[in-house]
Amino acid sequence: MTARSRPFKVGLIQMKCAVDPVRNLERALTLLADAAALGAHVACLPELFLTPYFCQSFDASKFNLAEPIPGPTTRALAETARSTSMAIVGSIFEHRAPGLYHNTAVVLDADGALVGSYRKMHIPDDPLYYEKYYFTPGDLGFKTFATRHARIGTLVCWDQWYPEAARLTALRGAEILFYPTAIGWHPSEKSEFGAAQADAWETMQRAHAIANGVYVAAVNRVGLEGAVPPGPGVAASQGLEFWGGSFLADPFGRVLARAGRHHEEVLVVECDPALQEETRRNWPFFRDRRIDAYDAITERYLDPS
Amino acid sequence: MTARSRPFKVGLIQMKCAVDPVRNLERALTLLADAAALGAHVACLPELFLTPYFCQSFDASKFNLAEPIPGPTTRALAETARSTSMAIVGSIFEHRAPGLYHNTAVVLDADGALVGSYRKMHIPDDPLYYEKYYFTPGDLGFKTFATRHARIGTLVCWDQWYPEAARLTALRGAEILFYPTAIGWHPSEKSEFGAAQADAWETMQRAHAIANGVYVAAVNRVGLEGAVPPGPGVAASQGLEFWGGSFLADPFGRVLARAGRHHEEVLVVECDPALQEETRRNWPFFRDRRIDAYDAITERYLDPS
Repeated sequence: MTARSRPFKVGLIQMKCAVDPVRNLERALTLLADAAALGAHVACLPELFLTPYFCQSFDASKFNLAEPIPGPTTRALAETARSTSMAIVGSIFEHRAPGLYHNTAVVLDADGALVGSYRKMHIPDDPLYYEKYYFTPGDLGFKTFATRHARIGTLVCWDQWYPEAARLTALRGAEILFYPTAIGWHPSEKSEFGAAQADAWETMQRAHAIANGVYVAAVNRVGLEGAVPPGPGVAASQGLEFWGGSFLADPFGRVLARAGRHHEEVLVVECDPALQEETRRNWPFFRDRRIDAYDAITERYLDPS
Repeated sequence: MTARSRPFKVGLIQMKCAVDPVRNLERALTLLADAAALGAHVACLPELFLTPYFCQSFDASKFNLAEPIPGPTTRALAETARSTSMAIVGSIFEHRAPGLYHNTAVVLDADGALVGSYRKMHIPDDPLYYEKYYFTPGDLGFKTFATRHARIGTLVCWDQWYPEAARLTALRGAEILFYPTAIGWHPSEKSEFGAAQADAWETMQRAHAIANGVYVAAVNRVGLEGAVPPGPGVAASQGLEFWGGSFLADPFGRVLARAGRHHEEVLVVECDPALQEETRRNWPFFRDRRIDAYDAITERYLDPS
């Protein structure tokens, strides 16, 4: 059985990512230490925090940004995990083998041990989010990791639109789902669609919390990246305005804390496994799942006749 | 392929259900005619609109309220469908065979033809919602129905908490998901949990719209039912306060119309299949589903080691 574990505090690190990976790693470690100082037991960084969001263009040289796991970044995170006694969810551009790359979440336990990895399963490919070029789809399935303070599930960004991903991770015993994220507005669309996009993003993940009776933490980057003025031989771009808005929802879908849209922030929020038990007891959705009738969920589409 | 169909108007009938089934049917037909007069092409009634929500107690005599399909209620709905040229989603306590009952949605096309039935798949069983006593779980799976004006999916109340149900119905080509519903507050809980419960209910269904790029219509009853003062030999009950709040969300999860919490209302809202195409084109979630990795969704739980 799942032991009734004790309340734990979660740190959400909303950060800006500069051009220099060395600076970004230093900044991440500083903000993680801030979260630990505020009492966090588990903290999460944004997706691919080490670099600018390089998927805005097709550029083979960007594969040089990848690194192995374990590697220099996991070692640095492990050292902070150990020194702060805080588990850490990091997000790494993984160099797995020659020419084979993944977008990978790593979990460091509070003693610095690398507990495991999750490779992003759902890969987007949309204007300025050219991820199918860079990331091989994950092959590790949906996972949870036992850390000192909580059993955590890891998913990454685009995964957040898929109820199947949240469900399968929750069924593996997650007390909380972490979504390291890099999502932003196209500046040209922001006035017309921006509010609805950000609201849909939060709504979808709150629904994962509700449907599964689980805490959900979405951790986004913030700030404008990739804006390129027109020039000779240069394609102009307005870039992407990462919309921040990192938040933590409880198993009832209530947002307990939410970061703003413009600045770096460290949120630290308490989560209580007893609330997960209570929420599922009152709305026992797991009890009534029709597992005899879900087979077709593995179909691409069920063409109407 | 799915033809690019034309915009259609949806009628949501939020109604109070009195003790007398004859009165409720008359009222339902009147409100349906109102929706048709407002231009509705497809309209939906609340769950089990013909009677009070009888599942507040265990009472074998209540099985007498069930009727066959086709039966008197589907015939009355068919006549209104034909006379108004409007497709109708009804909700019937179905007497299928001696001692065998279902909670069933029926679809009447705009010519009065009974297109088909959907039997509620997920059956709740919670204080004052003793549905497992009354309703045999559905055995028809998740379905859509081609009507003159739209291809519609039907689900019922408790189904609305299950992403699998929405997904499987959307995969069958639904342009809109209808949820005939009977959900309300326990008066004793309302001040503490009422707002969060109703918000979770709406959030969950908006998320079905977003995840699947489909319109969603939730049609609830409204009003207090089943309040019983204490008396000799009588168990007192505060009853259930059905919270109304019927709404229609577009494929982006935006609520286009929402009824109030206290009164009967007829909402008529236009839905445009072109918006479904456009929404899925911009956020192509169906494209990237990892159908190779969802098998375990048919498991009850994936016990962590």
